Amino acid sequence: MKEKNLVCPGFAAAAAAAGIKKANTLDMGIIVAQKPVPVAGVFTRNKVKAAPVLVDQARVAKGFCRAVVANAGCANCCTGKQGMDDAIKTAAIAARALGADEQSILVASTGAIGSYLPMNKIEAALPGLCSRTKPDGFADFARCIMTTDRQPKISVQTIKHEGKSAMIMGIAKGAGMIRPDMATMLCFIVTDIVASPDEIGSALSSSVEKTFNRISVDGDTSTNDTALIMASGESRLNLSACRGDFQKALDAVCLDLAKMMVADGEGATVLFTVNVVGAKDDAQAFAVADAVGHSPLVKTAVFGKDANWGRILAAAGRSGAEVDPEKISVSFDSVQVVKNGMGLGKDAEKKASQVMKNPQFALEIDLGLGKGSSFIITCDLTYDYVKINADYRT
Amino acid sequence: MKEKNLVCPGFAAAAAAAGIKKANTLDMGIIVAQKPVPVAGVFTRNKVKAAPVLVDQARVAKGFCRAVVANAGCANCCTGKQGMDDAIKTAAIAARALGADEQSILVASTGAIGSYLPMNKIEAALPGLCSRTKPDGFADFARCIMTTDRQPKISVQTIKHEGKSAMIMGIAKGAGMIRPDMATMLCFIVTDIVASPDEIGSALSSSVEKTFNRISVDGDTSTNDTALIMASGESRLNLSACRGDFQKALDAVCLDLAKMMVADGEGATVLFTVNVVGAKDDAQAFAVADAVGHSPLVKTAVFGKDANWGRILAAAGRSGAEVDPEKISVSFDSVQVVKNGMGLGKDAEKKASQVMKNPQFALEIDLGLGKGSSFIITCDLTYDYVKINADYRT
Repeated sequence: MKEKNLVCPGFAAAAAAAGIKKANTLDMGIIVAQKPVPVAGVFTRNKVKAAPVLVDQARVAKGFCRAVVANAGCANCCTGKQGMDDAIKTAAIAARALGADEQSILVASTGAIGSYLPMNKIEAALPGLCSRTKPDGFADFARCIMTTDRQPKISVQTIKHEGKSAMIMGIAKGAGMIRPDMATMLCFIVTDIVASPDEIGSALSSSVEKTFNRISVDGDTSTNDTALIMASGESRLNLSACRGDFQKALDAVCLDLAKMMVADGEGATVLFTVNVVGAKDDAQAFAVADAVGHSPLVKTAVFGKDANWGRILAAAGRSGAEVDPEKISVSFDSVQVVKNGMGLGKDAEKKASQVMKNPQFALEIDLGLGKGSSFIITCDLTYDYVKINADYRT
Repeated sequence: MKEKNLVCPGFAAAAAAAGIKKANTLDMGIIVAQKPVPVAGVFTRNKVKAAPVLVDQARVAKGFCRAVVANAGCANCCTGKQGMDDAIKTAAIAARALGADEQSILVASTGAIGSYLPMNKIEAALPGLCSRTKPDGFADFARCIMTTDRQPKISVQTIKHEGKSAMIMGIAKGAGMIRPDMATMLCFIVTDIVASPDEIGSALSSSVEKTFNRISVDGDTSTNDTALIMASGESRLNLSACRGDFQKALDAVCLDLAKMMVADGEGATVLFTVNVVGAKDDAQAFAVADAVGHSPLVKTAVFGKDANWGRILAAAGRSGAEVDPEKISVSFDSVQVVKNGMGLGKDAEKKASQVMKNPQFALEIDLGLGKGSSFIITCDLTYDYVKINADYRT
């Protein structure tokens, strides 16, 4: 995608090297709406929440916002009252520079837990940042929120309806539930659709459930997870006129970003989807997908290109879901290795090993019990995962 | 402990190289009681259960057994009707050789899932094995059940009461919930105490809850987990006369074996106990210990000797337990790094790093909310864990 296409009517963005990370690296950014616009958000369910999450939860509830300030290099989490004061002050600085209501400014942070925001650096850089926003500033913004991400993550979709056209642009950072140090997934979505806060909020919740809530790198969940959506209305196309199309486009943006996160997962070499069908119900299907997709033994076997289906059945068996070992079938893409609980032999496993050499594949599990289905998108567990996380702070 | 001490009145044991694993390696063994003795067992809660587990569950329910035949090199799991037939046939061969009731013979298997027992090899070796049992055969038995265990695992305790003396000897294999390929923990306990099946059963359940159910290497659970206890009564000391002392001794044997398993965990370099206090109740304390003890980010940080307490708080926060971040305190042994949710600085973290260089340490978490407490014993997540499990079958 060409970067000049990365504009969304009604919004502007910018990024700066504020010195929060190492020198000369983009580490702070802002997305600004021309006027207060409807906003909605989904936040981490971790009971240990970073200060910016607490600030945003209160402000998003009001339904409108003007801008969001984000930084990498510091999660501003486990920072007590000072952390809250710093988050509120950051918003106040931006409000002053933009001539906006303080309560209409959101904040988001990502980085290591337990250190304070360097407020002197933020005070020095933020007013200038606010003055330099431009419609095509999103590519820079996507870079400024990266921590150990190898790639910036941007996804765009267009909705066309009765001669009108709207767009959705999503920008994210993180790699699964955890990108290092629990200070992980941030997602900022802008759209020029006309919508109320409730409309974009329920669309976002629905998309998140099918996308960001279905990815995992290591099963840990963040203190800072934040997904925000803002709608400028500049397209003059009403969400209510194209609800299905809008949801589909938003789902596509979120799924795209979710997959980028897993593919960029710490140390990951393979992205695989665990598709479970034939469960008693969808919740039980998810329990199986979740257990298999998080099993260190399955994930290391995938790294080793070993179609070790015994580990898959064993993970399914401990998932809590109803499972009859004699009814389970397992395939890697179209290569079946288990039928009714019994292995189909070494040749099938060899073919499956070939499938596992692809950068992406699907692990298909049929429990043979009912109509419930679900999935999870995950990655392998590798030496580099251990290396990245053993060495992160040293 | 000297191997000549490894006798338990009323029992004999032997091991053989049956060729199930590679040639000339002990891979099958038997423990025989002089007569049918009270027996009790605890088995995997995985819904995918190996054939020997299904056979034993039915037979242990009768309360008495004469012998248990164990093998390494094949889990006899996901092997359908043939697997059940093979398990039953193995017991029948031993019954014939011992002149015992077929229903009084138990079986246990450990190894890779999805392959069949080599019955020709078992038929060739098992009768001779039955004829060679001897009182001091337990050291060999402990070796024959090893898979990738680096050490045999044996623990002995003595109970003295009013001039009488009884003993408990436990033998185990495995390294946490998983020793490779889900075909993991086996534990055989013999004692010469006088007891009913119910008495040893409830003592075993109580011990297992405090020991084997509190260890984890990677959070996966096995299809083959089996813990059996058999009581010969030869000591003439009644369990009912020394219930507290017997429980304490059995707890000590199981805890000793449990710690040996974690210390021998796949790739493990450090054993650490996660002690949680100050929870609303014991169940919530366990939820926190479980989340922290299974967090890949905590476990890799321990490997890296990084007192990265943010990861600990974040894992506690996602555990489902009630948690107030501003009341949590964290110490590594006696070195406190977090007080009321706030870090105590780099010096404290440096001291904690030193603690983490010990082969064992305790991670103490005080939630500051109530009187609930619990713990889990676990190990670090290392390159070698990935290597062992990525390469296991190749």
